[in-house]
Amino acid sequence: MTQHNPLEALAPGSTVGILGGGQLGRMLAQAAAKLGLRVHIYAPEETSPAAEVSDKATCGTYEDAASLTAFAESVDVVTYEFENVPGETARILAEHTLVRPSPKALAVSQDRLDEKNFLTGLGIRTAPFAPVDTLQDLEEALAKLGTPAILKTRRFGYDGKGQVKIDRSADAKAAFDALKGAPAILEGFVPFEKEVSVIAARAPDGSFAAYDVGENDHRHHILHTTTVPAALPAALADTAREMTRTLMDGLDYVGVIGVEFFILPDGETGSRLCINEFAPRVHNSGHWTMDACLVSQFEQHIRAICGWPLGSTKRHSDAVMLNLIGTDVEAWSSHAATPDRSVHLYGKHDPRPGRKMGHVTTIYHRQDR
Amino acid sequence: MTQHNPLEALAPGSTVGILGGGQLGRMLAQAAAKLGLRVHIYAPEETSPAAEVSDKATCGTYEDAASLTAFAESVDVVTYEFENVPGETARILAEHTLVRPSPKALAVSQDRLDEKNFLTGLGIRTAPFAPVDTLQDLEEALAKLGTPAILKTRRFGYDGKGQVKIDRSADAKAAFDALKGAPAILEGFVPFEKEVSVIAARAPDGSFAAYDVGENDHRHHILHTTTVPAALPAALADTAREMTRTLMDGLDYVGVIGVEFFILPDGETGSRLCINEFAPRVHNSGHWTMDACLVSQFEQHIRAICGWPLGSTKRHSDAVMLNLIGTDVEAWSSHAATPDRSVHLYGKHDPRPGRKMGHVTTIYHRQDR
Repeated sequence: MTQHNPLEALAPGSTVGILGGGQLGRMLAQAAAKLGLRVHIYAPEETSPAAEVSDKATCGTYEDAASLTAFAESVDVVTYEFENVPGETARILAEHTLVRPSPKALAVSQDRLDEKNFLTGLGIRTAPFAPVDTLQDLEEALAKLGTPAILKTRRFGYDGKGQVKIDRSADAKAAFDALKGAPAILEGFVPFEKEVSVIAARAPDGSFAAYDVGENDHRHHILHTTTVPAALPAALADTAREMTRTLMDGLDYVGVIGVEFFILPDGETGSRLCINEFAPRVHNSGHWTMDACLVSQFEQHIRAICGWPLGSTKRHSDAVMLNLIGTDVEAWSSHAATPDRSVHLYGKHDPRPGRKMGHVTTIYHRQDR
Repeated sequence: MTQHNPLEALAPGSTVGILGGGQLGRMLAQAAAKLGLRVHIYAPEETSPAAEVSDKATCGTYEDAASLTAFAESVDVVTYEFENVPGETARILAEHTLVRPSPKALAVSQDRLDEKNFLTGLGIRTAPFAPVDTLQDLEEALAKLGTPAILKTRRFGYDGKGQVKIDRSADAKAAFDALKGAPAILEGFVPFEKEVSVIAARAPDGSFAAYDVGENDHRHHILHTTTVPAALPAALADTAREMTRTLMDGLDYVGVIGVEFFILPDGETGSRLCINEFAPRVHNSGHWTMDACLVSQFEQHIRAICGWPLGSTKRHSDAVMLNLIGTDVEAWSSHAATPDRSVHLYGKHDPRPGRKMGHVTTIYHRQDR
């Protein structure tokens, strides 16, 4: 509504604006309500999972400057549930209210090349990479990085979309053509043992809190399960959290971030930890926190962007989170009947293939182990 | 919407109707959304804590038959957050949809005399009591039950309202006049050691699940804290849960119930367990389940009334729930900064004395003890 001192906490009764109406917006909205905050959703859809649990909703495009301005002026802080918020959208909103995480964090995470340059600039290991604007760039990059390698669009990729695996140099032209001339990046192969992720929060005063590291298993490029704790030496887990802090400090980040790490085999030269990518938002691999921690990643994000003290990230139970993709959701009743399993459904009505319809978390009580 | 087979589960996407817009309705609505259910609030207020987190809200009185009928026809089941739903309201709703818990459970709990007669009919001990319609009734009851005793209206009492303590027989007339001729009941003094409560659920198929027993401390007739587990011999706790089951079976109850017990000193004749009263709804003394159990009392109530399998009532942590009454809520920031404490604020804007503004739960991890 008005410009706030960015270090001052927003009191209960303030309004959090959220861009995007999906399940992440829905769970953020519920967390905000728990803290006595009001929620205003901005999304292009007339109805949405997030709007259904929120006080107000505006239906508007991300290009509609007048609508965005009215939205920004009606809320005390704006956050978002997806990283592909157009830069111009963020700029318009930031003229009128706090935008957290900042437009800079958005911009860096939106472009795979900028992201990797930013990380390596902080001394953080990534997969080897090279920018690809032309077929000649691609052929040179393949000569340098070898095969297999993955050609990815610099922007707008998620869940395996916008990427092509290249097994032989001879496939370069077909791969290049498949991306239809979009600016791209070639990523060299990383012989990783496993993927883990760190969910962490940073407050406006620079304070930092990270949850325990989770181990991710993907199927068809979509997260299938996250298991906590990850089977990982404690020192590596600590280092992953410290690298996350370095990244967040480097971006002067405010909010929750999701950072995916590849764990390289012991004996590899250099760090065994390599950042795959990060998302400037709450993250699917952090959903387990809703059931195994007192303060979930969603509440933590709301606390951070509202300048509240960060909550404890302590874990009271071990946990396995399983995504319900497409028709997986039809098993809701058997999940609900399983002891120590928490069911989360997103209120979506059409279980299309690949669509995230819900998730379930099984917790393991400490005394049971 | 349509009449369902009462034993068939309502699928995700169904709509739960809730009478009442306060904090209990709000927390029920959030629990329903977690399960992918839609929520429609019916309340006399234009805006309310529950409507703010729900898909739909109807503003109407509990006497408006047309409005109640339209509401009932737009939902798949109706429940309520308060026990003083007028009997005629429940009857109208039940003509058009499922009402759970049933109008019978409502009726019995609304009248202290009916409630005590029902309990004693099941062989459950209560405080000694006698109906009081006239001053002569009161004088005879005092002669029988002795002093101190408490004169209570049969209907519409809560949080200490509608009751007068009588320390001497000579105060009978003043007490009788204070209740202004409302039908009343005299309750004899019970020399109880402590008050505990059982939060339990019963499903349409008769299955039953009870949470661990909590110990309640009141201040100024309003619940101040609930501590779990109660300091109570395990056999007594088991008996309290069994008595709750007897009560629920007797009412063919569907949903969550809150039952308050007085614990009498060891050595008293008869059972050491005496039921003070029960509420046919989620209960303030069950709020701790949100933070110390995987399935909260709110989710459990939604599961029960929707015919879902009941969730596990296992407790992963010990807990102390503290109500934030009136200006207590101003300490929100220091509660939020305290580790292992979960903050719940209800979105109410005016912290009037005695008003429940929120609660906080401190959990104690098992390994910390």
